[in-house]
Amino acid sequence: MSFATFETEIARVNDILCAVNLLTWDSRTMMPPGGVEARGKQIATLVGLARDLATGDKVQRAIEGARAELGDAPDSDIRKIAVEQAAAAIATLARIPAHLVGAAADLKTRAQAAWAKARAADDFAGFAPLLEQTMDMQRQIAGAIGYDEHPYDALVSTYEPGMTWSQLRSLYGDLREALIPLLAAAREAPVRSDILDRSYPVASQRAFSSAISTRFGYDFGRGRLDDTVHPFEISFTRSDVRITGRFRETWLPGGLFAVWHEAGHGMYEQGIAEAFSRSTFTTDFINLYAVGGTSFGTHESQSRLWENRVGRSRRFWDLHFGELKATFPSQLEDVSVDGFWRAVNAARPNFIRVEADELTYDFHIMLRSEIEAGLIAGEIRVADLPAIWRDKIKSYLGLDVPNNTLGVLQDVHWSSGMVGSFPTYTIGNIMSSQFFAAARKNAAVERGLDEGNYTPLKTWLNDNVHRHGRSKSPSEILIDATGSDLSADAYIADLTTKVAELTA
Amino acid sequence: MSFATFETEIARVNDILCAVNLLTWDSRTMMPPGGVEARGKQIATLVGLARDLATGDKVQRAIEGARAELGDAPDSDIRKIAVEQAAAAIATLARIPAHLVGAAADLKTRAQAAWAKARAADDFAGFAPLLEQTMDMQRQIAGAIGYDEHPYDALVSTYEPGMTWSQLRSLYGDLREALIPLLAAAREAPVRSDILDRSYPVASQRAFSSAISTRFGYDFGRGRLDDTVHPFEISFTRSDVRITGRFRETWLPGGLFAVWHEAGHGMYEQGIAEAFSRSTFTTDFINLYAVGGTSFGTHESQSRLWENRVGRSRRFWDLHFGELKATFPSQLEDVSVDGFWRAVNAARPNFIRVEADELTYDFHIMLRSEIEAGLIAGEIRVADLPAIWRDKIKSYLGLDVPNNTLGVLQDVHWSSGMVGSFPTYTIGNIMSSQFFAAARKNAAVERGLDEGNYTPLKTWLNDNVHRHGRSKSPSEILIDATGSDLSADAYIADLTTKVAELTA
Repeated sequence: MSFATFETEIARVNDILCAVNLLTWDSRTMMPPGGVEARGKQIATLVGLARDLATGDKVQRAIEGARAELGDAPDSDIRKIAVEQAAAAIATLARIPAHLVGAAADLKTRAQAAWAKARAADDFAGFAPLLEQTMDMQRQIAGAIGYDEHPYDALVSTYEPGMTWSQLRSLYGDLREALIPLLAAAREAPVRSDILDRSYPVASQRAFSSAISTRFGYDFGRGRLDDTVHPFEISFTRSDVRITGRFRETWLPGGLFAVWHEAGHGMYEQGIAEAFSRSTFTTDFINLYAVGGTSFGTHESQSRLWENRVGRSRRFWDLHFGELKATFPSQLEDVSVDGFWRAVNAARPNFIRVEADELTYDFHIMLRSEIEAGLIAGEIRVADLPAIWRDKIKSYLGLDVPNNTLGVLQDVHWSSGMVGSFPTYTIGNIMSSQFFAAARKNAAVERGLDEGNYTPLKTWLNDNVHRHGRSKSPSEILIDATGSDLSADAYIADLTTKVAELTA
Repeated sequence: MSFATFETEIARVNDILCAVNLLTWDSRTMMPPGGVEARGKQIATLVGLARDLATGDKVQRAIEGARAELGDAPDSDIRKIAVEQAAAAIATLARIPAHLVGAAADLKTRAQAAWAKARAADDFAGFAPLLEQTMDMQRQIAGAIGYDEHPYDALVSTYEPGMTWSQLRSLYGDLREALIPLLAAAREAPVRSDILDRSYPVASQRAFSSAISTRFGYDFGRGRLDDTVHPFEISFTRSDVRITGRFRETWLPGGLFAVWHEAGHGMYEQGIAEAFSRSTFTTDFINLYAVGGTSFGTHESQSRLWENRVGRSRRFWDLHFGELKATFPSQLEDVSVDGFWRAVNAARPNFIRVEADELTYDFHIMLRSEIEAGLIAGEIRVADLPAIWRDKIKSYLGLDVPNNTLGVLQDVHWSSGMVGSFPTYTIGNIMSSQFFAAARKNAAVERGLDEGNYTPLKTWLNDNVHRHGRSKSPSEILIDATGSDLSADAYIADLTTKVAELTA
């Protein structure tokens, strides 16, 4: 037994999870309608095999063998880190009893069906019993995983290792205080959003967003872009990292920013060091996503950085609006770069999270996090959710929610058992500004951004974030790259600057 | 333990193999270049897991439990057949030692690389040592599987259960005797083949061939058509059966007949009874293709039937040439249905098997089979292959082979370790005529063919061939459907009629 044996065993688990990811990618891009039923069974079989292998004796012996071999190596030895990281992930996984895993999978199937029906019919009562069961199940899972302060911590940390509800509440407090006046100011900025609803042929949207993605540094030789309903990025090792988009002829931002968002995720996966690609644990093993990034929030920071910090900046459009106008000459004939930049940064409170702009997005996350934490702690009752939702949307965004379909029933997450993942979207927003600010202190990065040369920025991200894979925690990566742990300061500063520009 | 347990265990193996098939499909249609290396490892891991599960104690106990439960059931009970079929397949698989399986996989990787290089450089000597090792390996595998008469029988029967070299030689003798004068006559038929090389836009080729495939009965709701280099059909259960094509603007037959060929394979898989789809052994376990058809030859009979018996018939073009002409009005302006039908049936001896027409194709198979059998028996030396190849092509087709790239190096099969599969192409040709003749005795089938209504033919094939999956042997299916076992008579009759029409 040796580290090499450990690597081989972990690689086998990763191979299975990569196959699961291909089955998933295919089901969301290529699969004919007939394939649905069997595909679910195929994925369940492979996920079960991966769990069995990961928690089995062979892997355990391989971990012990590797520990013995590496006994004298320093703690910073990358092999030692890989072994301990795998051991910890497996230990957490093993704490969740098999019967709970099976019951959760079964409940998910039923809950998703009930949710889809309830959403279509605006019938919250039809989903409520399943939502109660889901929250009960998640409470049991939280108990099995264990936590120090709050049961929500156990769930959040499966997506964002080390994150707590206490830390999140503090971040949300800072954000709320800053965002409320910024949003009020931004709503006053002059904007003509209707220019984005004109007829933009899909093929040209795809070509333009792909060309920019390539300039950002997404490598199509190790990836591809396909159509889907809800865009996502997915990988089958660092050398095959695919992105998807949803192009609508009369909604240009959907065809541009969503692609750059996914390309940002993709560059993270493509940039993980070769050494971690197959032979260390590149898997989030509780939620069973085979991602090589260190956390969901860190992943989201990369997508948000390219989408918002770069893609929605005035500097970016000063450089590239000419190209866009050449692509859509008649559609943009009467539009200036200033008008276009204002349109893609318009702050418009909206009921729907996935359509939210930068100044309202985090309010959608806060309200969901508060509800999740309250439900898991037993402080909120499922039956009260519609009223709580209405009150919070009114308080945060000043809107009156007309029905539950546009309110508490809008997201798939709860029916999927993904409780604790919402905070990572806001963590990603916050981190994106921290990384971007640190990168811009590098003169070559800043000069590159002025010239439309994105290689220095991408290289900085490769070196400081991507290449480490899961060998460093989110905190370690943040502190080493930016000099400080998670803090909303840089993000608030970015949004403050943007609102000042918009209202100037 | 019960039959239900057996079904569950076999379904898990099938699930893994379906995932292997998706990994394979993706690698030949969608995968970016970067994915190659990791994909090979992912497939190897999953194939290994499938083998381990299939030959493991759990499956063995499940087989014994099912046997005990079904003790009193009649031998015709579909469950009993499924259990015994799985038991036999696993027993054969278990006879091949694990070290041989590993060595064969390793050799295949090296042999394919050497073959590709040798073919590009017309350097047979560069491939010869690997070909010798491959044949030695195949001899060992044949020995492990076991045989009564000839070692080639063991290999052929992994593709075509029950087939022997002795039976093949007899069929080949009948064919040769009939084909030589037919080919000589057909070569004299007037034909203008150049009309097929005009510029036929690919999108229109795809639309036309897809529309006809739908009329034949291929269900796009449970399938799709994608581009690839070497067209193939592949399935992930009967409800997701995909076909591929290779469309070239200046070669119309490639875009039509190849699609109908693959659609024929696809209709077989789509037509297998629901009961066999996941819960019985739908896998060729030696060569590890997850196919539900009873043999490679039977599968090929379905593709050839739609491609040649239907698609190249005069009756078909009398019905559909108008539609083709409407699709390509300028390209076909000066072409009559008679001229078009002659062009797609032209007999032209050619060096390349995959470009061969109906009257020359089987000669390519005979020469390969004779060489394979001779090599496995040790009666032919690898070093003599170029000369043997030249002699046989001269004798069968009257052509002088200019180099080994157009000769002995043209096929990927030997470097892939697929020794014994070539005969199934000719078996498929032969069977296609037997099934077609039997189906046409049904008045509704014959009337449908006259009217361009292919549902009765497809339904007949569903009932008599497809639905049985692997629950009946090729012989049983042939005899029950046509009244006789494998015989070249119907095929020779079809070709005789066609040549008579071409030379009339």
